[in-house]
This record gives sequence, structure tokens and C-alpha cells, in this order.
Amino acid sequence: MVDWLEKIDWAELLMEIGIIALKLIAIVIVYFIVKSIGNSAIERVFNRKKKEMSTGRAMTLESISRNIFAYFLLFIFVGFVFSIFNFDITTLLAGAGIVGLAIGFGAQGLVSDVVTGFFILLEQQIDVGDYVTVAGKDGVVEEVGLRTTKLRGFDGTLHFVPNREITNVSNHSRGNMQALVDISIPYDTNIDKATQILEEVCERAARDEAIVEGPNVIGVQAFGSSDIVLRVIGKTKNGEQWGVERNLRKAIKEALDLNGIESPYPRQVNINKHA
Amino acid sequence: MVDWLEKIDWAELLMEIGIIALKLIAIVIVYFIVKSIGNSAIERVFNRKKKEMSTGRAMTLESISRNIFAYFLLFIFVGFVFSIFNFDITTLLAGAGIVGLAIGFGAQGLVSDVVTGFFILLEQQIDVGDYVTVAGKDGVVEEVGLRTTKLRGFDGTLHFVPNREITNVSNHSRGNMQALVDISIPYDTNIDKATQILEEVCERAARDEAIVEGPNVIGVQAFGSSDIVLRVIGKTKNGEQWGVERNLRKAIKEALDLNGIESPYPRQVNINKHA
Amino acid sequence: MVDWLEKIDWAELLMEIGIIALKLIAIVIVYFIVKSIGNSAIERVFNRKKKEMSTGRAMTLESISRNIFAYFLLFIFVGFVFSIFNFDITTLLAGAGIVGLAIGFGAQGLVSDVVTGFFILLEQQIDVGDYVTVAGKDGVVEEVGLRTTKLRGFDGTLHFVPNREITNVSNHSRGNMQALVDISIPYDTNIDKATQILEEVCERAARDEAIVEGPNVIGVQAFGSSDIVLRVIGKTKNGEQWGVERNLRKAIKEALDLNGIESPYPRQVNINKHA
Amino acid sequence: MVDWLEKIDWAELLMEIGIIALKLIAIVIVYFIVKSIGNSAIERVFNRKKKEMSTGRAMTLESISRNIFAYFLLFIFVGFVFSIFNFDITTLLAGAGIVGLAIGFGAQGLVSDVVTGFFILLEQQIDVGDYVTVAGKDGVVEEVGLRTTKLRGFDGTLHFVPNREITNVSNHSRGNMQALVDISIPYDTNIDKATQILEEVCERAARDEAIVEGPNVIGVQAFGSSDIVLRVIGKTKNGEQWGVERNLRKAIKEALDLNGIESPYPRQVNINKHA
Amino acid sequence: MVDWLEKIDWAELLMEIGIIALKLIAIVIVYFIVKSIGNSAIERVFNRKKKEMSTGRAMTLESISRNIFAYFLLFIFVGFVFSIFNFDITTLLAGAGIVGLAIGFGAQGLVSDVVTGFFILLEQQIDVGDYVTVAGKDGVVEEVGLRTTKLRGFDGTLHFVPNREITNVSNHSRGNMQALVDISIPYDTNIDKATQILEEVCERAARDEAIVEGPNVIGVQAFGSSDIVLRVIGKTKNGEQWGVERNLRKAIKEALDLNGIESPYPRQVNINKHA
Amino acid sequence: MVDWLEKIDWAELLMEIGIIALKLIAIVIVYFIVKSIGNSAIERVFNRKKKEMSTGRAMTLESISRNIFAYFLLFIFVGFVFSIFNFDITTLLAGAGIVGLAIGFGAQGLVSDVVTGFFILLEQQIDVGDYVTVAGKDGVVEEVGLRTTKLRGFDGTLHFVPNREITNVSNHSRGNMQALVDISIPYDTNIDKATQILEEVCERAARDEAIVEGPNVIGVQAFGSSDIVLRVIGKTKNGEQWGVERNLRKAIKEALDLNGIESPYPRQVNINKHA
Amino acid sequence: MVDWLEKIDWAELLMEIGIIALKLIAIVIVYFIVKSIGNSAIERVFNRKKKEMSTGRAMTLESISRNIFAYFLLFIFVGFVFSIFNFDITTLLAGAGIVGLAIGFGAQGLVSDVVTGFFILLEQQIDVGDYVTVAGKDGVVEEVGLRTTKLRGFDGTLHFVPNREITNVSNHSRGNMQALVDISIPYDTNIDKATQILEEVCERAARDEAIVEGPNVIGVQAFGSSDIVLRVIGKTKNGEQWGVERNLRKAIKEALDLNGIESPYPRQVNINKHA
Repeated sequence: MVDWLEKIDWAELLMEIGIIALKLIAIVIVYFIVKSIGNSAIERVFNRKKKEMSTGRAMTLESISRNIFAYFLLFIFVGFVFSIFNFDITTLLAGAGIVGLAIGFGAQGLVSDVVTGFFILLEQQIDVGDYVTVAGKDGVVEEVGLRTTKLRGFDGTLHFVPNREITNVSNHSRGNMQALVDISIPYDTNIDKATQILEEVCERAARDEAIVEGPNVIGVQAFGSSDIVLRVIGKTKNGEQWGVERNLRKAIKEALDLNGIESPYPRQVNINKHA
Repeated sequence: MVDWLEKIDWAELLMEIGIIALKLIAIVIVYFIVKSIGNSAIERVFNRKKKEMSTGRAMTLESISRNIFAYFLLFIFVGFVFSIFNFDITTLLAGAGIVGLAIGFGAQGLVSDVVTGFFILLEQQIDVGDYVTVAGKDGVVEEVGLRTTKLRGFDGTLHFVPNREITNVSNHSRGNMQALVDISIPYDTNIDKATQILEEVCERAARDEAIVEGPNVIGVQAFGSSDIVLRVIGKTKNGEQWGVERNLRKAIKEALDLNGIESPYPRQVNINKHA
Repeated sequence: MVDWLEKIDWAELLMEIGIIALKLIAIVIVYFIVKSIGNSAIERVFNRKKKEMSTGRAMTLESISRNIFAYFLLFIFVGFVFSIFNFDITTLLAGAGIVGLAIGFGAQGLVSDVVTGFFILLEQQIDVGDYVTVAGKDGVVEEVGLRTTKLRGFDGTLHFVPNREITNVSNHSRGNMQALVDISIPYDTNIDKATQILEEVCERAARDEAIVEGPNVIGVQAFGSSDIVLRVIGKTKNGEQWGVERNLRKAIKEALDLNGIESPYPRQVNINKHA
Repeated sequence: MVDWLEKIDWAELLMEIGIIALKLIAIVIVYFIVKSIGNSAIERVFNRKKKEMSTGRAMTLESISRNIFAYFLLFIFVGFVFSIFNFDITTLLAGAGIVGLAIGFGAQGLVSDVVTGFFILLEQQIDVGDYVTVAGKDGVVEEVGLRTTKLRGFDGTLHFVPNREITNVSNHSRGNMQALVDISIPYDTNIDKATQILEEVCERAARDEAIVEGPNVIGVQAFGSSDIVLRVIGKTKNGEQWGVERNLRKAIKEALDLNGIESPYPRQVNINKHA
Repeated sequence: MVDWLEKIDWAELLMEIGIIALKLIAIVIVYFIVKSIGNSAIERVFNRKKKEMSTGRAMTLESISRNIFAYFLLFIFVGFVFSIFNFDITTLLAGAGIVGLAIGFGAQGLVSDVVTGFFILLEQQIDVGDYVTVAGKDGVVEEVGLRTTKLRGFDGTLHFVPNREITNVSNHSRGNMQALVDISIPYDTNIDKATQILEEVCERAARDEAIVEGPNVIGVQAFGSSDIVLRVIGKTKNGEQWGVERNLRKAIKEALDLNGIESPYPRQVNINKHA
Repeated sequence: MVDWLEKIDWAELLMEIGIIALKLIAIVIVYFIVKSIGNSAIERVFNRKKKEMSTGRAMTLESISRNIFAYFLLFIFVGFVFSIFNFDITTLLAGAGIVGLAIGFGAQGLVSDVVTGFFILLEQQIDVGDYVTVAGKDGVVEEVGLRTTKLRGFDGTLHFVPNREITNVSNHSRGNMQALVDISIPYDTNIDKATQILEEVCERAARDEAIVEGPNVIGVQAFGSSDIVLRVIGKTKNGEQWGVERNLRKAIKEALDLNGIESPYPRQVNINKHA
Repeated sequence: MVDWLEKIDWAELLMEIGIIALKLIAIVIVYFIVKSIGNSAIERVFNRKKKEMSTGRAMTLESISRNIFAYFLLFIFVGFVFSIFNFDITTLLAGAGIVGLAIGFGAQGLVSDVVTGFFILLEQQIDVGDYVTVAGKDGVVEEVGLRTTKLRGFDGTLHFVPNREITNVSNHSRGNMQALVDISIPYDTNIDKATQILEEVCERAARDEAIVEGPNVIGVQAFGSSDIVLRVIGKTKNGEQWGVERNLRKAIKEALDLNGIESPYPRQVNINKHA
């Protein structure tokens, strides 16, 4: 292979490069035509479906369909390109086996993404519009794909999470949620009286439509260094838990004020000496 | 393989695509028919069984049966689809060996899920309705599957935990639970007197049906910077431990108040100088 | 393999499925008969042995025997089932090599469990009834198996720990334990006098049967910001260390009170200015 | 192979080394010529495009084009060099298989970089000029490459992040952002009055062009040990959130001062004793 | 292999099982005889040696000898058992290759234990009776084995550490140890005077036989918020460092008291306002 | 191979060992001659270049050239030595395959070092003299090599970082840096007045040559428990940021003192009770 | 292989075992003779060298030479032993392939140790007597070996660090070190005056021979809640940094006392209310 360079027939080489270029252009053009046709077909199908199904579910299915279509096309496209270049590249690169091994390992992450993505979709773990926690990120799902899931954080940030990073999925949009408020009262308060006041507040709060069950005072949760902690819990409609908690806090504070139960500021017993 | 593109017989290709499409449709139809028949059969069997067995165990078995049936069907389905496409895809993709390697590694996680899931079921580590801690998530089990376990957190969140993430299983619904209350008293209290008061409270509390054993005052657990900590422990029926603890806390606080043992606010000795 | 579907002889296929089903049923029946016979045999053997050996050791051996028997049976059972299905499944699944690779990796965890379990048993690292810390979980051992170890936490939770998760085993039930009490005294106390008082308490405490050695005052362990810390240590019978510590704490507190050495509340020197 | 050293024909060896050197020089010269031509071509193309497209997108595309071109050239270059040296090096190094294995594993990281980089670009996760958080680093993107992404931190540091380190991408430049201000008020303040004051401030602030939605007072967020925490949130244009928050803070502080609601300094109840 | 079940000659099978059982029993008996002979031989050898060598070293060597003997025997034993069962098991288990792979990976940990254990022994990193820190566990070595090392923690717990978990070994029983005492003095103390007092204490302490070098006052180590920290260090015999530190602390405290240098309680400048 | 030891021809063996020794000595001598010639050549080339280029860049290139030369030589040297010993060692070591596998894995880290090092150099991520943060270490680069990078920490420590440990490179010497000063003022200060004072200081500071842009008061950054925090930021020349910050701090403190805005000591509201 | 046990010729087996034992004894004797000769040779060589070179470097080279010699001998020794046992062991162990795989993986760590150790020595990263930080352990190097590095911690502990655990090496004995002292002064101090006092102290301190550069007051480093922090830095000879810092601290404290600048005790503004 030492005199490899001299043996090349330069005319034939140029010829071959020209043919490859032509094929490449043809494939690219076909690729873009098929892609745009497919995408508009998917869109038309789901526009009709959106009238029949819930929008969130329809959007999930549409984004998945696009995804599968896009990756399927890309695979075929890459396959064609490889089959064209195949001959030439392998000749140039002596260590093809090594390259193959490296690519196999490198692509492993991609397969891992797709397998995980497939099961997230199959088991309907997340829908577009759900509020979820995955891979340490909180947010509302904007798109579920075979490779990547997009979350919109509450602060406006857009998170791109590769599916392989998703292990546990915590979906906060599947059923009623709990509202929980901890209230501190001073140690010298009568626990029964305080409980009764809170229960009256809970009774009034229970009329709120966002509340499904309770709220109830469940008792003495803990003793702090200067306060007794009472806990109130209830069930609310999905997404309403924060509002309900905020309203409960305000109502309880005002009821305690009205009944002369003051806030338990930190207390300290001072034993004074003079130096 | 340079003139690969020219050698294709386009008519035959179209023909073959048509046949594949027909087979595919046939397989999909058969798949859905078999699936719906199987599922309704499973449901009927377990509706009968629920009268004989405890509901939780029956639900676990039903969810597993569905699972095994679904994955078994899916495997056969994918096998058929692969056997149809086999010929065509491998021709397109030159680097099939690499793809195979990548898929093998990617699917490894799935096998890991199923193996772990199998042993969780075989050893009956969790049942539907149990309160468990797995993979850092607390919750009540909603479904145990071969691939995924679903937990409902106390705040209403639905957690999807892939079985491979489950290493240690901590099941909080298998037997009596411990109720534990730590009580702080000031340093200048007589320990014997305080212990006696607590023991009287424990005696009254022991009449509660939720309590199985105790509660008892076990002694001086620790010295804080301004308080002596006494510990009370008891055994309760499963799921009753929190209620028992809350009731004990209230009763102890009221008994200590009645006997003039006040709460041990943080103390500080101030040595005053004037600048 | 394109015309694979047409070549199938459907009659023969049905025939074969029937035979397989019959064999399967036969194997399952045999499996359950052998299992119940084996288990009752094991139980009878160990009921006799329990009179001769310590109960804890006998229970460990019994649970292991059951385990080995169960897994041995399962392996043979799976082997039979595989040998029946062998022919049919491999034909369906084209990519058997890939599946094999994936299963090999997936099962690796199981082998790891069994190997670790084997050495835990061989080296007698844990017995049923021991209080141990493994894989970050505290508890009393309820069962040692080849694959899983069951711990009962002090709060009543049942932990299932796969043996592969067990690296270091900390066994708290193998020999005498240390009781350790740290006592804070104010900076202006005479250290010799305080030490003497503590030594007198230790002398009285040493009469307790649960104490094997000491307790002794070993000296000034540390200087806090407002206190001198003296340390008392002793050796107790296994499992008695917490009770001994609690009793020591109470006795020391009462002795210090009697001798007018008060608790070292945090001290602060205030230098007052007026704004 | 013992008498390997004697069998070498030194004249031929020198000859061969000379030829290799000539080829090497030729390849290096061609490499640099092709590279400079390619780069100037890319630059010219994108200078024209910048008039038509948004600058950020054009710069991203230009930096990618340069990247792909550079790595493509490098691969071919290394291929040529290897094909020249091939014969000689493998003869020298006995353990070529081992070396090959080691290189395969070593290069795996590089492939991982390129695969991840490819999908970051394909899915347009980041553009030049975006403010993003990747791999624990905050910063404005300066360059997106196939192997490395460059971020300029707010403190002026230039971070080089290999693409394989990028798992989750948090892009803070994709849509409106949230402005969030928490305000503490003393426990003895009337919550309704405080809320009203804040809402007046919000109304005036809403006239700011940078604000898209709100801001609104959403209620009592938490109870501190000496303060009630009210929360104000709003939507702002991208990049304006910090300025809006700072302005809101100043305006709210001044409005509260004007209405005599003072800052909630930490409170403590002192119970005085004299030693 | 479909009619595999019919072709079995049941008589011959039973025959063969009988022969295997006999062989097994023979091997087990030989195993236990050889083991007990070997162990008593090892014991006798080392009982003689203990008179010549230091006990700790002799015990280490004895425990290793037993270990190597036991594992060597076990390997041969397992080899025999396998050679007996070989024929039958491989026939039953179709997927022997997979099982082999899994076992190879599972046993990897065991080999890792033995290799690490071998080097710990060869390099004499730990002896029986040494106080060491390995794998995050503190304790006195009770046994060093090829697979596991046993540590007795100071609280009485027995830790079983698989050798593969041992990376860094910190041996606290190899040479003299440092005693270090930090002393806080108030800011208004004369540093020279305090240093002189400490040096006088050090001089007296240096007469202690447990001290090898020093102790010396090395100067002002740090400024606290209300105190100057002086540091005293010295070298002691191995194992005596804690006792020396405790004695130094007591002596220094008494010397400072005698010279009227009081303890630096936390100081605070109060600027008083009236609301 | 049992009578392997008898069949050796000892005379021939000694002969062969002699020849190997001679070859070895020859190779070592040639190695050192070539090395010293190469190194002095590199030095001479770069001494000339240093007049033309910036010193930092020239030093980087020189250290790399030496590196590549040294490793290239070492590889060839090891190759020769291996080719000599080849025959003898493989005969001695039966398990050559195992050794080969182990070496392949062991050397993997070395390849990883070189590949990472190559790209750090190619992409000019660090130059000699840059202040960088890599692998958790801060420092000024002393040498960039193919295998190891040397950093001089600010405390004088010399860090050797293997290149494989370098993932993210944070280079603090590439462009202007930010100076950032946070200033606390009491709650009862007029924010506008304080801002005006700070802006006057900033105006005077802006005359400093080290400052490139600003500094500016950007507003109210946060509310502390007893203070309002104002933030000042500016751009400085590289390396001047710390000096600028220190000067700004001093100037701001003096300006606030002059205008009677005092430091916001922590405040606490005391509510006094008497026991 | 079922009747394998019967076919053994017991006489020949015993014969063979005898031969093996003889060979083994011969090899062990030769091993110990060669080892002791080699070691004494190495010692003699380095005793001569120590007069010419610096002791630290000579000791490093000596410990390495011994190491390489010892491992080289061990490898050959193990090779011989294996070649003797080869035939017999492989016959006994059926699953030799599996064992080989396991050993290959297990030995991987050892190779990793040697490769890392080789480069630590080649690049002279640590010498005997250096104070270094490796693998999270601080200490003075006692021995650098091919497999293990021994550090003596300041508290007297001897750390054995396997070389594979060494990634970053932080060598604190390569060049001058920085002395850094932070001094807190009260907020009402004149910064210029305090700086001047510190500079006078620095001037006097600069006469110390241990100081190479500075020390200098570099300015206002930070604002604490009750203090201004000034920073003093200087360069010292290696190993003298702690002594210089301690002396600087004492001198600065005395100078500030002399000039009436008192220590900045924490300050608090108390606003008093009466309950």
C-alpha cells in the first residue's frame, strides 16, 4: 500500500465524485419533498381529530407522529447517504473497525433515548400540558418526543431533557392534590380552643369549589422551641392547591388575630449577671 | 455497490412494498383483536376471584396478569413486524452490526426492569395499596407492573418508577408500627416527677384501640442546651402511628401544663458590661 | 423469508401448540407437588433441630435451605419450560443474539445477588434476629435469603434489601457494646470535683448486671463555647447499651443537681451601648 | 524474530523514510490550502445571508458550517497520514490489537461529543447569543460546535463545555420570563391593607413596556418566625426580568414606608431572670 | 427437540442420579476430613510460632493461612462437584452461554476481593490488632482474610468489609501520633503572657512517659469572633494521643484559671433603641 | 509441558540473554542521543520564534512540541524493547491473553488523556500563563502537555491534572472581567439618596484605567433581614477585577460614612417579660 | 466424563504431585536468593549515589528500583508457578474460560495502578519527603511505589493509597508558598489609618528570612455583618507559610491594640418593647 498514491486513476476519481454529488443532490431533494408532504398530512389529520378528542392528548399524539416520521425519514436518508459514500470512506480510513466500535458506543445513548421515550409514550406517563418533575427539572410539558422532552419552567426557562435522563417521572397533573398548612401557636395557648378556631375557618373554606375534601385540622404535628405546630390538610382540584393554601393561610391568620392568639415569636429566658 | 441505484427493479419494489403493507395491516388488526379478547378474559376471571381473596392481593395479580399478557403480545407483534421488514431494512442500513450492538445495550435497561419486576412480584415485596418507599419516592402503590411501578404520593403526585430504579424496598404496610414522641422539659424539673406524669398519660392512652403495645416512657434520651429530652414509645396498628403520636403529644402537653411543668424555652446567661 | 407466512402448515402448528400446552400443564403440576413436599420436609427437619441448636441459628439455616431449594427448583422449571418453547420462540424472534446479550446483562444483577448472598451465609456475617446496618438501612434481620435479605426497622417498616446492595455489613449483635455519655458542666466548675461526683455515680452504676466493664470517667473531651465536656464510657451486654446510657444520664443529672453544679446554659457577654 | 534487527536493509529503510516525508509534506500543504479556501467560502456565503436572516441564527449556522468542514477535513487528513504510516508503525508495535482496543475506548468520548452536538444543533436547542445553563455553567453562548460549546459567564469567564457533558439544556432565552418578588411584612400588619398597597404599586409598574403580564399580588406565601411573606409575580419580556424585579422592590419598599408599614426585624420575646 | 421428553430412558436416568449422589456424598466427606486436618495443622504450627514472633503478626499470618487453605479447598471442591454435574446441568439449561457470561460478571467482584486482599497482605498494610480506617469504617482489625476484613468498631459493632471496598487504608497504629489542643482566650488577654502560662504547662506535661516530643505552643492559629485561638501540639506514643490531649486540656484550663485568664464566652455589642 | 524444565538448553539460553542485553543497551543509548538532539533543536527553534510571537503562545507551542516528541520517542522505544523481549516473555507467561486484556483496559486511561489533551491544544482552550479552573482546581497554567496539565495555585501549590480529568475548562483570562460589589444599607435609609451617593463614587472610579465600562448602580438586589442590598457592577481589564472591587469597596464605605449612612448592624426587636 | 473418577491412575497422580512439590520448593528457594541479592545490590548502589544527589531524589529512585525489581521477580515467579500447575488446575476447573474472564477484569485494577504509578514517577510528580494532597489525603510522602504510595499524615496516621486512586496530585513542596492573613476591624475605624498600621507591621515582618516577597496589605476584602475585613498577603519559603502567618497574626493584633483599634465583636441593634 506504499505506492497507493501513484496508482490512482485521477480521471476516474473525478468522474466518480461527480456521480456521487449528483446522487446526493437527488436524495436531499427527495428527502425535503417527502418530509414536507408527510408533515402537512399529519397536521391535517390531527386538526380533524382535535374536535373529537381532548386537545392535550391530541397535541401529544401529533408531536409524537411528527417525531416518529422525522426520525424514520432521517434513518432512511442516512442509510442512502452511507450506501453512496460507503466504498470511498472505508478505503480512506484504515481503522474502520475501531471507528465502528466507537460509533456503536456513542450511538448507545441515542438508542437509550428512543427506548425510554417509547415507553414514556406507550405508558402515557406524560401528556403535553402536564405539570411534571423529571430529571430534577420542574415544568409544564411543551413537547414529548422520541429523543427529547421539552419543559417550560415556571420562571419561563425552556428545558430540553434527553429521554435517557428521565428515570422517575413525577406527574403532578393526575388527580386531586393535597393542600397542607402548618400553623404555629404559642406554648401558653389552649390547644382545644385553637383547634376549634381553625376548624371554624376550615368549615368556611370548605365551601370553595376548588376544594374536594376537607380541609381538616389533624392535630399537634410537632413541638418547636417556642411554638406548638398544628397541621391542616385538605384535598383540592388539580392545580388549585397553591391558591387554596394561600387563602387558608390568610383566613387562619385573621381568625387567630380576632381571637387574641398572637404569633409565637422566638422566646428566650435571659438570666442576667453583671461583670 | 456504486451502481446499486441503477440495478433496482422498481416494479418489483413497489409490488413488495404493497405486500408488506397488507401483511402489516393484517398483523395490526389481529393484534388488537387478540388484545381486547385477552383483557376482557383477565377482567372476568379476577372479578370472580375478588369475592374469594383480599381485594389488594387480587388487584395486584390482575395488574400483573394484564402486564405479562400485554408485553408477551407486544414481543410477538414486534417479532412478526421485524420478520416482515427484515430483508429490506438490513439491505438499506450498511452498518447493521453497529446498530445491533447499540440496540443490545439500549434494551439492557428494559431487561433489567423486567428481571427486577419479576422478583418484586415473586417475593411479594409490594402489593397494590401498600404504603412504600422506593427509589427515594414515598407513596401508596397504585399499580405494580413488569416494567414500571406507580405510586401515589401523599401530596397527590403520581410517580412512575421504572423497576430498575428500585433497589431497596421499604414497605411500611407489613405489621405494627412504632409511635415515638420526644418531650423536652426544663433542666430544673424533677425527672422522676415528670416521668410519673408521662406514665399516667401513657396509661390512659393505652386504652386506645389503635395501640397494640405500650406506650412507655423509656427514659432520658438526651441533654439539649436548655432542656432534658424524655422519650415515649409504643406499638400501634399499621397506619395508625401518626394519629397516635398526635394524640399523645396533645395529652402530654396538657398534663405537663396541669402539673406546672412549663416549656423549656432556650435559655441564655447574659453577663452585662457597659462600654 | 418474504413468503414465510404462506409456507406455514396451520394444522401442524395447532397440533404442536396443543402438545406444548399439555407439557406445560404437566410441568407446572409436578413443580407444585415437588415444592410442597420439599418445603414440608425442610420444616420437619428444622423443628427437630431447634431443640438442639440456638433458635436464631436454626432459623437462619431453615430460611436458607428453603431458599436454595426454591431457586434450584425454579431453575430446573425454567429450564424445562425453555426446552419446550425453545424451538418456537427462536424462530419468531429474528434478533435472538441481541436478546441473548440483553438477558445476559440483565441477569448479571441476579448472579451478583446470589454470589454475595452465598458469602454472607458462608462467612456467617448475619443471623436471623441480629441487629445490623446494611446498605444504609438499620434493622433486625427477619430472613436471610440467597437473593434478598429482609430487615425489620425499629419503626416497624419491613426493608427488602437485594444482596448485591450489601457491601459493608455492620453487625451490632456480635459481642459487648459501648455505652457513652457526654456531660456538659459550666466553665467555673472545679473539674476535679465534678469528676469525683461522676465517678461515684459510675461506681453505683457498675453494680447493674447489664454492665460488663466500667463505666469510667475518661476526662475532659472538649471545650464548648460555654461548657466543659466530660466523657463517661463503659462496656455493656449486647443490646443493653441504650438502657444503660439512659440510666447513667438520669443518675448523673441528679448527682450534679445534688452537689449544686448547674447546667451550663449558653452564656454571652453583652457590652451595652445606647444609640 | 530474534534476529529481526540484523535482517533490515538500511538503505531501503532510509529510502522509504524519505518518500514518506515527501508525501507527508504534500498532504500538509494540500490540507492548509483546502482549509483556507473552504473557510473564506463559508464566510462569504454567510456575509450575504446575514442581511436576510436574524444575525444570531446566521452566526450559529456559520460556526457550525466551519466546524463540520474542519472536522471533515481533519478526518480525511488523519486518514491519509495513517495510510502512509500504516505499514511501518504496525510492524514496530507488536501489540497492535491492544493499542486498537485502547484507542477505540478513548475515542468513544469524541464520538459521544459529536453525536450530542449533532442533536443539539438539529433540534436547535441553543443559538449563539442565548443565555443558557448547561453542565452546571451559566452563560451566554459564544459558539456552538460539533465537539465543544463556548459560554461567556456573567463574570467574564469563558467556559469550554465538551458536548458530552451537556445533558439537560436550560435555555433562558426562549420566551417571556417571570419576575418574582417576595415581601416580608410584620405579623401585626393588616393583610388586606398591605395587599392593597402592593396592588397599587403593581398597577403603576404594569405600565412598564418590559412587562407583558401582571404583576399581581398572589397572596400569603408563607409565615416566617417574625414576618408574613406576600408574593408578587408577573411576566416580562425576555432578559428584562431582573430589571423589573429591582424596580418593583424599590417601588414596593417606598410605598410601604409611605403607609407606615415598617420592616419586620427579627423579634424575640425575652423572659428575664436574675441570677 | 420437540419429542425430547419421550426419548428419555427413565431407568438409566435414575441409575445415573444414584451414582451422582454417591459421588457427592464421598466428596463432601473427604472435604470435611481434609478441612479439619488442615486447620488443626495450621493451628499447631502457629502456636509454636507465637512464642518466637510478636503475637499480632502471628495472628495475621494464621488467619491468612486458614483463609488461603479454605478457599483453595473450596475451589477444588466446587471443581469436583461441577465435573460431576457438568454433563446433566448443561443439557437441561439451553442458554449455557448466557449463564456463563452472567456468572463471569458476577464472580468478577470475588476476584476483585481476592486480588485486593492479596496485596493488602503482601504489602502488610494492616495487621490483626491495628486501629485502621477503611471504606469509611473505623475500628480495630479482628481478622484479615482474602475476601473479607473484620473490624471491631469502638462502639462494639463488628464490621465485615469486603476487600474490594478497601481503596485507601489509613493505619493509625504505625508510629507516633500527634496530640493537638486548641485553646481559646479572650481578645483582651496579653498573648505573650498566655503563651508563657501554656508553655509552663507543656513543660510539666513533657515529663509524661506517653509523650515523645514536645508539647509546644506553636502560636496564634486563628481569630474567632470573640476569641484568640492558641494551638499546642506534641508527639505521643501510639494509642496514647487521646489520653495526652485530655490531660493537657485539664492542666491548661486549671493553669489559666489560676492566672485569672477567663474563658472567652461569646461577646456581643448591644446598641439599644426604644420603640 | 510437565518436563518443560528439563528440556531447556542452558547454554543457548545464556547466549540469548547476552544478545538481548546488548540490543537493550544499544537501544537505550540511541534513545538518549536522539532525545537530547531533538530537545535542543526544539529549544533553538522557539528561541527564535519568541521574538516574533507573544511569549505565552510561544511557550505553549514549545511545551507541546517537546511533549509530542517525547511521547513519540517513548512509543518507538517501548516498541523496540517489546520486539526484543517478545519471544521470551510470552513463553514464560501462560495467560498472555488475560494480561493483554488487562493492559488494554489499563492503557485506556492513557489514551483518554492524550485524546483530551489533543483537543485542548487544537482548540486553544488554555495557554501557558492563563488563569483557569479545571477539574475543581484554580490556578495559573505552568505547562500544557499531552498527558498532564500543570497549574500553580494562588497559595503556591503545584497541581498535576491528568487531562482525562479535565471536562469543562473555565478560562478566566479571555477578555474583560466583571467587578461586582454588593452594599448593605439600613432599612430606614432613603434609597434614592443612597443610590445617588454610590453613583457619584462610581463616576470618580470610572476614571481608573483598569475599568473598561461602568461601574453602575443597578438597583435594589435583595432585602435582608435588617438591610437593603444595592448592587454595583462594572467591566474591568482582565486580571484587574479584584483590585477594582477592593478600591470600590473602600471608596463607597468612606462616601457613605461622610453622608451619615451607617452600617446596618443586625437588628432585633426585643419584647421583654419578667419571670 | 461420568466415569472420570474411576479412570485415574492413583500411583501416577501421587508421583506427579511429588514432582510438582519438588519443583515448587526449588522455585521458592531461587526466588528468595535472587531477591535478597538484588535488594542488597540496589542498596549499595544508592548508598554511593546519596553523596552525589539530593537525598530526597535518591530515596525516591531507590524505592522505585526496589519496587520494579520486586514486581518483575514476582511476575516471573508467578509465571513459573503457573507453568507448573497449569496442566493440573485447568483439568480440574471445567469453566476455565469464565475464570479467565473474571481474572482479567479483576487484574485490571492492578494494571491501572502500575500505569498511573509509572507516569507519576516518569513525570516526577511526587518525591519522597514532599508534602502532597492525593486522593483526599494530606501528608508527607514516605514511599512512592509502582502499586501503592505511602503518606504520613500530620496526625501520625500512615495512609496507603493505591496509585489508581490518585488522579489530581497537589504538591505543596514545589516552590514558594503564600501567607494570607485576614484581619477584621470595626465599622467605625478609619480604613486608611488601619491600613497604615498594618503596613508598618508588614514592613517589620518583611525582615524575616522566611519571607521572600511582601507581605502587603492589598485592601478591603469584604464587609461582614459587623466588621470590615482587610487582607494581607506575602510569599514565603516553602514550608514556612504557617509560621509566618502565625507571627503576622500576633504582630498585627498587638499593633492594633497599641493603636486603640479594638476587636469587632458581633454587634446588634436592640429595639426594646415591653409586653
